Amino acid sequence: MYNPKIGDPLSTLDTPSMIVDLDLMESNIHKLFSTLLPTGRNIRPHLKTTKSAALARKLVAAGAKGCCVAKVSEAEAITAAGFDDILITCEIIGGPKVQRLVELVQRHPGIRIVVDSAVGATAIDAALGKAEVKTPLAVLIDLDVGLHRTGVANTDAALELARHIADNLKNLKLIGVQGYEGHLQHLHSREERKRECLASMAILTGTAETLRKEGFNIEVVTTGGTGTAEFCASVPGVTELQPGSFIFMDTDYRNAVGRFYANSLTILSTVISRQGERQVTIDAGLKSLTTDSGLAECKDAKYVHLNLGDEHGALSWEAGTTDLQIGDRVEMVPSHIDPTINLHDFYYAHRNGVIEEIWSVDSRGKVQ
Amino acid sequence: MYNPKIGDPLSTLDTPSMIVDLDLMESNIHKLFSTLLPTGRNIRPHLKTTKSAALARKLVAAGAKGCCVAKVSEAEAITAAGFDDILITCEIIGGPKVQRLVELVQRHPGIRIVVDSAVGATAIDAALGKAEVKTPLAVLIDLDVGLHRTGVANTDAALELARHIADNLKNLKLIGVQGYEGHLQHLHSREERKRECLASMAILTGTAETLRKEGFNIEVVTTGGTGTAEFCASVPGVTELQPGSFIFMDTDYRNAVGRFYANSLTILSTVISRQGERQVTIDAGLKSLTTDSGLAECKDAKYVHLNLGDEHGALSWEAGTTDLQIGDRVEMVPSHIDPTINLHDFYYAHRNGVIEEIWSVDSRGKVQ
Repeated sequence: MYNPKIGDPLSTLDTPSMIVDLDLMESNIHKLFSTLLPTGRNIRPHLKTTKSAALARKLVAAGAKGCCVAKVSEAEAITAAGFDDILITCEIIGGPKVQRLVELVQRHPGIRIVVDSAVGATAIDAALGKAEVKTPLAVLIDLDVGLHRTGVANTDAALELARHIADNLKNLKLIGVQGYEGHLQHLHSREERKRECLASMAILTGTAETLRKEGFNIEVVTTGGTGTAEFCASVPGVTELQPGSFIFMDTDYRNAVGRFYANSLTILSTVISRQGERQVTIDAGLKSLTTDSGLAECKDAKYVHLNLGDEHGALSWEAGTTDLQIGDRVEMVPSHIDPTINLHDFYYAHRNGVIEEIWSVDSRGKVQ
Repeated sequence: MYNPKIGDPLSTLDTPSMIVDLDLMESNIHKLFSTLLPTGRNIRPHLKTTKSAALARKLVAAGAKGCCVAKVSEAEAITAAGFDDILITCEIIGGPKVQRLVELVQRHPGIRIVVDSAVGATAIDAALGKAEVKTPLAVLIDLDVGLHRTGVANTDAALELARHIADNLKNLKLIGVQGYEGHLQHLHSREERKRECLASMAILTGTAETLRKEGFNIEVVTTGGTGTAEFCASVPGVTELQPGSFIFMDTDYRNAVGRFYANSLTILSTVISRQGERQVTIDAGLKSLTTDSGLAECKDAKYVHLNLGDEHGALSWEAGTTDLQIGDRVEMVPSHIDPTINLHDFYYAHRNGVIEEIWSVDSRGKVQ
C-alpha cells in the first residue's frame, strides 16, 4: 500500500504531490510576524489559503491571534481538527447554512461571523433564538471598501444595520467591522497598491469611528491580505490583519509584491511522455494546478510550461540548452495558491528533501 | 448535523451543491447508447468525467463494456467502490506509481493499461516480474493521432515498441492500440471535427492494421470522446469508444457539439449579497466552478455571470428585466465538467426537485 511516511525521501512520493519546503515556509512566517507584530495589530491569518488546522496552530505559535475561514463548512472542518478561534469572513445566508452555523456555535461559542444585510442578520438571530443559544454571537459588519463583492455600501448603511442589530437582534453582539480590499492585493505597482489601500482604509476606519460616535462598541477593525497588510498596519484604527498567502506564495503574488516572501510550495510532477526533441508531457494538469491566474511555472526556469489538459501539462525548452527524459521529476510553482491547495489532500513538508511533517488539507473542498 | 437524505427536497440542500437532473441525465445516456450500440463498437465510457463507481454501474447497465480512468489512483478508488473493468488511459511512470499499479493488478487482474515508451513498459514489466504476478498485464500502445500529448509518434515507433514488448517483456501482453483525438473534441465546426477525426482515425486504424500484418494480435482499437464518438464509430477497424462528458455536458461541449445532449448537472448556489441595483454576489466561486474553459453560465439566461473570486461569483442583469434578492437560489452550468466535478464530494441527483439518489465522487482528487 502506498503510504508516505515522515523520514522518507521525496523520491518515494508518487506524483503529482504537493510539497512544502519547510525552511522557506518558516522564513515566510518569521518575516511576516517580525514585520507586523511590532505594529501592535492582531494577526488573524486567513485559512482559505492553507485549509489546515496544523498550520493554524503553527501560526498561533508564531504570534497569530486566531484565524479566518471563508465558509461555515470550513469552520466545521477546522474546529473538528482541533482549532476554534475563528472568524468566518463570508456572509452566511440560507436556512440550511444558518442551521449549520447554529450547531457550530453551540459547540464553539468563540466563533465570529460577518453580516451585510438586515435580512441575513435577522435570519441568524432568529435561528439562534429558536435554538436557545445562551451567549450572543459576535458579529462584524462587513463593509464594501471598493471590491464591490460583499459588504454594506457605505457608512450610512453600516449605521442602519448596526442599529437594527442593537435594537432588534438580541442574539447577536456587534463587535466590529470588516472591510476586505481584495481587489488591491495583486496590483503590481507598490505605490498604487499603497495609495488605493490607504483610501480603502480611510473608508473602513471612518465608518468604525462613526459607529463608535453613535455609541456602538467597535473593538475590531479587520482587513488586509498578503499584498496590503503592511499598509493596513500603518493606519490608526485598524486593529487586525488577515493575510493568508504569504506562507506559501504563488507566481501571481510574486509578480505583484515581489520576492520578500519565497515560493515555498510546489507540485512535484513526473515526465510521463516525450513529444519530439524539445517537449515533454508531465502528469500535472488542471486537476493538480489551477489556471484562473495563468499557467503555473516550472521551478527550474529553463522549462516553459504549456498546459494541455485535465491530467497533463507540457514543458518545452530552447534548443540545445537542456533536456528532460521520461521519468524525470520537476517542481511546478502554482499561479494561484488557494484553489491549487484545494485540489490536494495532503501536504508533504520536507527539509532538504526528507519528509519532516505531513499535514491534512482539513478544509479541502469545503465550499459551503 | 447537516445530512441531506434521499426524499428531501432540493430546498434542504446547503449551497453550493452539485445537483443532477435525473430525467436529463437518463435521456443523455439513452441517446448515446441508442446511437452507438447499433454500430457494434464497445462503449467504454471515461470516468475522468463522473469519477463515480455508481455511475459506472449505470453505464454498464445501459450497455457499456467497462470504463476508462485516467490515473492509477482513480483506478484504486473506483475498484474500492466496487467496479473493476477498467482501462487506465494515461502512461504510468515512476517507481512509486508502478508499485501502486502492481499491487492494484494483483487484486484486479482485469485492469488494462497503456504504454508509449520502451523505458516505461520495461519498468512495469520488471516490477510485475519482481512481484511474481502470474497473469500477464494487458497493455495497449498509446499512439499520437494529432494531440501531441502522449503516445508514440507514428506507426514505425508503434511497431518498434510492439516488438520490444513481444521480445523482452514477458509480463505484458499487447492487446491493442489507443489513440485519443482530444484536440478535436471541442472544435465548433461539425464538418471540420468530422474531417479531422477521420484523419486521426486513419492513423490509428492504419497502425493497428500494420501491427496485425506484422503478427501482433491487436484486438482493441480504442478512441473517441463525446465530440467525436459518432465519427469514430463509422470507421472500420475502430472497436471501442471512450466518451465521458455526454452524461452531464457543459457549456464548452454545448457550444461545440450542440444540444443533442442536455446540460444535466448544475451547481446550486445562493445569493449572499446585493451590490447596487443590478448585481448580486453568489456563494459559488473558483472553488466550486472552474474557469479554464471560461466562466460558468447561469441556467436562467437572464443573469450574466461575472466571476469574482475563490468563494464568490457575481450575477448581473439588464435594467428593469428581472431581479435577484439575498437568499434567492440559482443554478450555474459549468463550463468544463471534469475539473468542476473534481471540486465536489457528492452528487445530489433529483427528479422534479426531490433528491432520489446521492452518489459519492469516488475518485475526486485522485490525480496520481
